[in-house]
Amino acid sequence: MIIWVTGANGFIGRHLVRVMADRGYRVHGIGHGAIGDAERHRIGLGHWLNGEIDAANLNALAEHSGLPSTIFHLAGGSSVGLSIAQPFEDFSRTVTSTARLLEWLRGAARDCRLIVASSAAVYGDGHGGAIAVDAATLPMSPYGQHKLMMEQLCRSYAVTFGIRSTVARLFSVYGPSLRKQLPWDICSRLQAGERNLVLGGTGEEVRDWTDVRDVARLLAVIGGTPQTETFQVINAGSGLGTTVARVATMLAEYWGGTVSVRYSGIVRAGDPSSLLADDATLRALPFDWTIPAEQGFADYVSWFKGQSR
Amino acid sequence: MIIWVTGANGFIGRHLVRVMADRGYRVHGIGHGAIGDAERHRIGLGHWLNGEIDAANLNALAEHSGLPSTIFHLAGGSSVGLSIAQPFEDFSRTVTSTARLLEWLRGAARDCRLIVASSAAVYGDGHGGAIAVDAATLPMSPYGQHKLMMEQLCRSYAVTFGIRSTVARLFSVYGPSLRKQLPWDICSRLQAGERNLVLGGTGEEVRDWTDVRDVARLLAVIGGTPQTETFQVINAGSGLGTTVARVATMLAEYWGGTVSVRYSGIVRAGDPSSLLADDATLRALPFDWTIPAEQGFADYVSWFKGQSR
Repeated sequence: MIIWVTGANGFIGRHLVRVMADRGYRVHGIGHGAIGDAERHRIGLGHWLNGEIDAANLNALAEHSGLPSTIFHLAGGSSVGLSIAQPFEDFSRTVTSTARLLEWLRGAARDCRLIVASSAAVYGDGHGGAIAVDAATLPMSPYGQHKLMMEQLCRSYAVTFGIRSTVARLFSVYGPSLRKQLPWDICSRLQAGERNLVLGGTGEEVRDWTDVRDVARLLAVIGGTPQTETFQVINAGSGLGTTVARVATMLAEYWGGTVSVRYSGIVRAGDPSSLLADDATLRALPFDWTIPAEQGFADYVSWFKGQSR
Repeated sequence: MIIWVTGANGFIGRHLVRVMADRGYRVHGIGHGAIGDAERHRIGLGHWLNGEIDAANLNALAEHSGLPSTIFHLAGGSSVGLSIAQPFEDFSRTVTSTARLLEWLRGAARDCRLIVASSAAVYGDGHGGAIAVDAATLPMSPYGQHKLMMEQLCRSYAVTFGIRSTVARLFSVYGPSLRKQLPWDICSRLQAGERNLVLGGTGEEVRDWTDVRDVARLLAVIGGTPQTETFQVINAGSGLGTTVARVATMLAEYWGGTVSVRYSGIVRAGDPSSLLADDATLRALPFDWTIPAEQGFADYVSWFKGQSR
């Protein structure tokens, strides 16, 4: 069975490729960034096409690898902040690339199944507790808006053309090899010797932190579960909320030494106060998370210290 | 005051340009299709840039005409059927062009107001009676889906960057110079001598028919009304539903002679059974429709017979 992963060179993509290769699939990929042969073999990736997701490149990859039976579509914008700084770039990466991929599937691989990484950012602000998968979507950043538009394109191609897709709305994914966002920022500052950290926001922001190793396994489980409807959306969070303050405390503790953390109180643009999954759609798969936050952040600190040696 | 109309060469665009020019505005346009000088003067259009809506062309138009204070954005896909035959083309025309326009405004004309022609197709099927502007949106065609994505881009640029926009969801616009859709199809067949018409669907489909002359005036009224919120959506229908069967009967009657009309019973893909506006947002403008369906379709038959002589 031939599997493609778009954005296979990204944080989640590399973990997913490894998981799928370990399960015996032939895995190929397309997206931006060079991957050396040694690294390609290490993560279990067959062909890698470094380029835009467009018809010419998809045809070229198909010629090398054969047509895929499942595509994990992970390519796209990956930062709220960058989407505010360069909204058209985020639009192109997330929305236009998906439009091109769907159109290619319509012409060349109608039976291929698409599993799409979306984001809890589609929900926006104002959700107090666990967010049901059918809750109102009112994104507060271009990043979240473009992810929602990506989902809607998938729905449209499912309804009108029968192209099957499953949208997995990922929550706060972290873990080994994440080189951005809160855990990376905190560890980088601790590494640099800072001991009095001032973070943005209030510290009371709630996030549903999920370890990338669990997330990669989840995507594999979705890919291995027969799809009963042409289009479906899964809330890919754990249902367990952890505040930013708690994450900072854990990281500082696992790092060691005396660290104080304060908060500026200034809310970042595009940053909802709470994003926590109602995990009913996940339990129905079924899927169970195996890495609690305590272990995940401890492992993150170990990885961080190891990679910087 | 400088006004731009994207898609000024289209059915609604030409009517709108005339209305705005008559009100004393300098009106310029960008979009696809050649417009000869004589025709340009006839409809009251200043500069016309025949090309894609992209940064280079928008800069070129601004150099010729000066920066606009209001842009009426009418360019985009205009057919449910074509959107099913060529979904990526419809996506590019409706979504990508809007993304480029918004991004250009963000950089070059942040105070410019955008008035965007969307469609009742964003609502989809399953709405029995008058549809409120905040009703659920679940488009059933790529055309409707892409219009909804266009709206969401506008909302996103309003929320994040303060670019003001008003979305007018147009219902079934018809009138002089419409050369497609039901009225055109029926008149063309009557013109060709057919007297036993077989139409698709059941004839019981309900539409909120609005005469393009009223619609152009409505868009002008929206443009002349101060915008109180950064982003707003207006349901640009009359609240009066007329079945397809009634429209066919009117057109046949105004045409003259004995005509029979039957229906295939086969519902067209992407075609909701009822699209009727709750016109509360329009009444609040305020705006009143002046051309009832009886007059509008009589005028349409007169125009059709006149243009084909």
